[in-house]
Amino acid sequence: MTDSTDARPDRLRIVVVGGVAGGMSAAARARRLDEDADIVVLERGDHPSFANCGLPYYVSGEIADPAKLLVQTPASLRAALDLDVRTRHDAVGLDPDARTVTARTPDGTVTLAYDALVLAPGARAVLPPIPGLADALEAGVATTLRTVDDAVALRDRVVALREPTTTAGRPARAVVLGAGFIGLEAAEALRLAGLDVDVVELAPHVLPPLERELATLVTAELERLGIRVRDGLGAVELHRSPGAAAAPVAVELADGEVIDADLVVVSVGVTPDTAPFEAAGVACERGAIVVDEHGRTSVPGIWAVGDATVSTDPVTGVRRPVPLAGPANRAGRLVADDVMGVATRPVPRPLGTAIVRVGELTAALTGANRAALDAAGVAYETIHLHPGNHAGYFPGASQLHLLLHLRRTDGALLGAQAVGRNGVDKRIDVLATALRHGARGGDLVDLDLAYAPPYGSAKDPVNLAGMMADNLTSGVLAQWQARDLDDVLATALVLDVRSPAEYATGHLPGALNVPHTQVRERLAEIRAAAAGRAVRVHCASGMRSYLAHRVLVEEGFDSANLSGGMLTLTAWLGRDAKDVLVVGETGSSPKELP
Amino acid sequence: MTDSTDARPDRLRIVVVGGVAGGMSAAARARRLDEDADIVVLERGDHPSFANCGLPYYVSGEIADPAKLLVQTPASLRAALDLDVRTRHDAVGLDPDARTVTARTPDGTVTLAYDALVLAPGARAVLPPIPGLADALEAGVATTLRTVDDAVALRDRVVALREPTTTAGRPARAVVLGAGFIGLEAAEALRLAGLDVDVVELAPHVLPPLERELATLVTAELERLGIRVRDGLGAVELHRSPGAAAAPVAVELADGEVIDADLVVVSVGVTPDTAPFEAAGVACERGAIVVDEHGRTSVPGIWAVGDATVSTDPVTGVRRPVPLAGPANRAGRLVADDVMGVATRPVPRPLGTAIVRVGELTAALTGANRAALDAAGVAYETIHLHPGNHAGYFPGASQLHLLLHLRRTDGALLGAQAVGRNGVDKRIDVLATALRHGARGGDLVDLDLAYAPPYGSAKDPVNLAGMMADNLTSGVLAQWQARDLDDVLATALVLDVRSPAEYATGHLPGALNVPHTQVRERLAEIRAAAAGRAVRVHCASGMRSYLAHRVLVEEGFDSANLSGGMLTLTAWLGRDAKDVLVVGETGSSPKELP
Repeated sequence: MTDSTDARPDRLRIVVVGGVAGGMSAAARARRLDEDADIVVLERGDHPSFANCGLPYYVSGEIADPAKLLVQTPASLRAALDLDVRTRHDAVGLDPDARTVTARTPDGTVTLAYDALVLAPGARAVLPPIPGLADALEAGVATTLRTVDDAVALRDRVVALREPTTTAGRPARAVVLGAGFIGLEAAEALRLAGLDVDVVELAPHVLPPLERELATLVTAELERLGIRVRDGLGAVELHRSPGAAAAPVAVELADGEVIDADLVVVSVGVTPDTAPFEAAGVACERGAIVVDEHGRTSVPGIWAVGDATVSTDPVTGVRRPVPLAGPANRAGRLVADDVMGVATRPVPRPLGTAIVRVGELTAALTGANRAALDAAGVAYETIHLHPGNHAGYFPGASQLHLLLHLRRTDGALLGAQAVGRNGVDKRIDVLATALRHGARGGDLVDLDLAYAPPYGSAKDPVNLAGMMADNLTSGVLAQWQARDLDDVLATALVLDVRSPAEYATGHLPGALNVPHTQVRERLAEIRAAAAGRAVRVHCASGMRSYLAHRVLVEEGFDSANLSGGMLTLTAWLGRDAKDVLVVGETGSSPKELP
Repeated sequence: MTDSTDARPDRLRIVVVGGVAGGMSAAARARRLDEDADIVVLERGDHPSFANCGLPYYVSGEIADPAKLLVQTPASLRAALDLDVRTRHDAVGLDPDARTVTARTPDGTVTLAYDALVLAPGARAVLPPIPGLADALEAGVATTLRTVDDAVALRDRVVALREPTTTAGRPARAVVLGAGFIGLEAAEALRLAGLDVDVVELAPHVLPPLERELATLVTAELERLGIRVRDGLGAVELHRSPGAAAAPVAVELADGEVIDADLVVVSVGVTPDTAPFEAAGVACERGAIVVDEHGRTSVPGIWAVGDATVSTDPVTGVRRPVPLAGPANRAGRLVADDVMGVATRPVPRPLGTAIVRVGELTAALTGANRAALDAAGVAYETIHLHPGNHAGYFPGASQLHLLLHLRRTDGALLGAQAVGRNGVDKRIDVLATALRHGARGGDLVDLDLAYAPPYGSAKDPVNLAGMMADNLTSGVLAQWQARDLDDVLATALVLDVRSPAEYATGHLPGALNVPHTQVRERLAEIRAAAAGRAVRVHCASGMRSYLAHRVLVEEGFDSANLSGGMLTLTAWLGRDAKDVLVVGETGSSPKELP
């Protein structure tokens, strides 16, 4: 049937497919711009506006009331914005020539005419082709975590599993497949809810977009929480073993290990949910709708927004979907401006800024990472630093672990990542702002950030990063990286300028220990040890060794400083660090203890 | 005597006058750039590198160990950086032609030759011309809080005052003169240390650089801490009444009140400490050294940095000193680059970003405020918002109070201020970064800030501010301000779109109450009440009334929305709010309760 009952020919009819972030933002903005338009939102599920990003926190119990997850209802949207929100309307067909969209409803299909169509169908959870997974999903022992219904069902199951009778004296166990942002939130939620949890990640480390030398810090925090991390391998099969006392599912990993579990959460990513629109001729790229800078699709009268669309990486120029709530919300507003003919600015190219809380840590990133830069062929340098989140003399300071990728040619900021207990979100937001404005690394020196002892330092970590970037661009600083370690050990003198006590706790094989305050007076000894080789200097964090590096350069040495020092090196090495580092005073010849 | 013992003619001699932030940064950077230079630092006091901003926290006891305040010592600076730091060397003379500087020391005067001179003498506490103050300072019952010695003496006195015998059964009382950033830190420190505290501020409100509608929130927090605030008046005389049991000093205020006190802290600002250099011909402006964009003074071979210098406000173009640690530290480094002939970037014009913790609140600002904009004749609009610091559905959300000043002509960001419990520092740092990069308000929509429920919202407060700014620039939003209240009450219909229950708690006289969800159906009633007058709409925060404003505009009304709603209006009115607002349902005609 064609629904024309409320289609008054004198009113502009805007149909929005999909609620939540992008769709609801577009619909609400359209109303604020046009009181007369007929604005219809078709939402597949029951909830046109829910807190997608809050779902893991409902599973953990941190958010106790599921009603909190529901931001708006059809009634509240009608009252405040005169929106015609139709839930349980699943858009399954599109006729661009007739300008109609067809939705499947519990009462049959309905076809609506539109003047403007905004597609915000979102993305659905990817289900990897693991034998047994479909069966486990069907049986309810495996689940994704994408909808309010998913979260409510998972919470119910978690609560039930804590009943002692159901697990026959054995702690309930969950396996989370996928250690991305949502996967880790789910893992922590399940752990907080009292389950034993294993996380399985196919990529070499958790949070694959994060660089290795930061991801290992997250792995350590997960382990501190009692979550077991299996990275670098996938699940190959889910074996169902129905029965009251036994675990209902056994997860077989690629290395042969079998983990008995009460529950499997699948969180290996999302994929655009665009089949009916692509079939109707809306141009897509690997399933994601292609849009121009105003969110227009290839078909006149049709816009698209959110997880279902591709966008261009402003750093590398690569097109890819960015399934994040923030960009979708903001794009929805701008797309509505274009629908209404009043757009004054393009939809911004999303940087992919993301953040996750893991235990007491925060991990966050913005812009391009090494993999994206390598794939795009961008020449870059990476700087690492480990400053306090605020003045060290003020109580409660904790260490930030921060890295920046800078374009080699001109020092332009390309990306930044950080892990730490406090102040991570602030620094990544500042860096995302600088990145959006095309800052060069050295420009970060000039940022007037708010300083009082509880909040930062007179030289904020971002300013410090700027000074390092500036030094790198001007040649005052030359670096070597943790990934150069084998080459450095084979060809250079490693000069460890930490104190003898620090050196003794673990140092590189063959490293000469000269505390940084003794470098000037022991140049001859260093020169003899180098025997014509380059000197590769390091300390714990890279600060003292930078001073030593400057002395060495001024004295004519071929010197470079280990970016991020031993803190970054040991994090890079991760579980291998114990095999590389030498404990004890071998190779040391300190003149005095510090 | 001329000290030439270590002046080797083949070494560049750099003399830095003044340690701490700007001076030490310049000296350290110079060494990192030149291993051979002879770098001498003349420091008037005992401590070449101390945590100036930490002093109030030592007074409170939050920082327990005074050694924590000492960042570096002459010995550590010699060891790490080969700096020749001479404490108790007070630079009292300068001969630019001979290129010598003369310092007074405990052992007489010493004259040093220099090739390059960096002046970082800092600023000293202003002592207002209050009769009796000099005597009280002399007697040790009044003090400034500018040096480590000040802080140690004050802490000792505070500890002594807590001994029950000294105050004869009466709680010890301190009066802080000046409610600027340091004054409030001192007041809170003394309160935390157990004293009764009064703060006296000559300006109309505490934290004078903060706008009135945010400062009143700080006043309320001070009062919650038990600190009494007397603003809008000064102390006119300090009466000394020496004696064991009686308070040793009585502070007489301009309104005749006399406050008996055990202790007076004077914190009414600082003034550049430049007399010997101005006398020697270094160009100054109201006592502050004039420098160019590389920190060069009017005299060849002499640079200056820090609290003793003027700098140009990047927003208004006005020249003024900015006595803040952050800009001084960063400028020190850049000045050294110029001294060494390798400067690649100018010293940035400081935005004056500042922050202070007051109890559980944080107050911060960046860029120009109303007073600076008015003085410079800049036409601007102000937007106010009160978003949560993070997603409302996640536990622990608290409200931010944020305002932005935007240039009327093009929406350029001119300044921003915020007060709140959490997340203030992050938003002000993001806005300071955007301001540094010349952002227009609407550009803030495009910032990809890190979002997960514990950290922010999909539309971060800064994004929301950007949307409001964009709406203002495009004409989608028109505002009225709290300061227009009298005019609005006299000439317009005030439309209060809050719920009847909210309305009853306190509303503007004559305001018509139509909840925002009823505006569409009650347009005729609103039109009748307006009777040809403009409609000035408001709600609690400005969000619901923005929706109503859009409906009214679309229906042809002359409408404007109260910036920041009742939250901003009541904060603007402060103690006067109770005289303006009507409690009860007068003037209301709700159709239904919400």
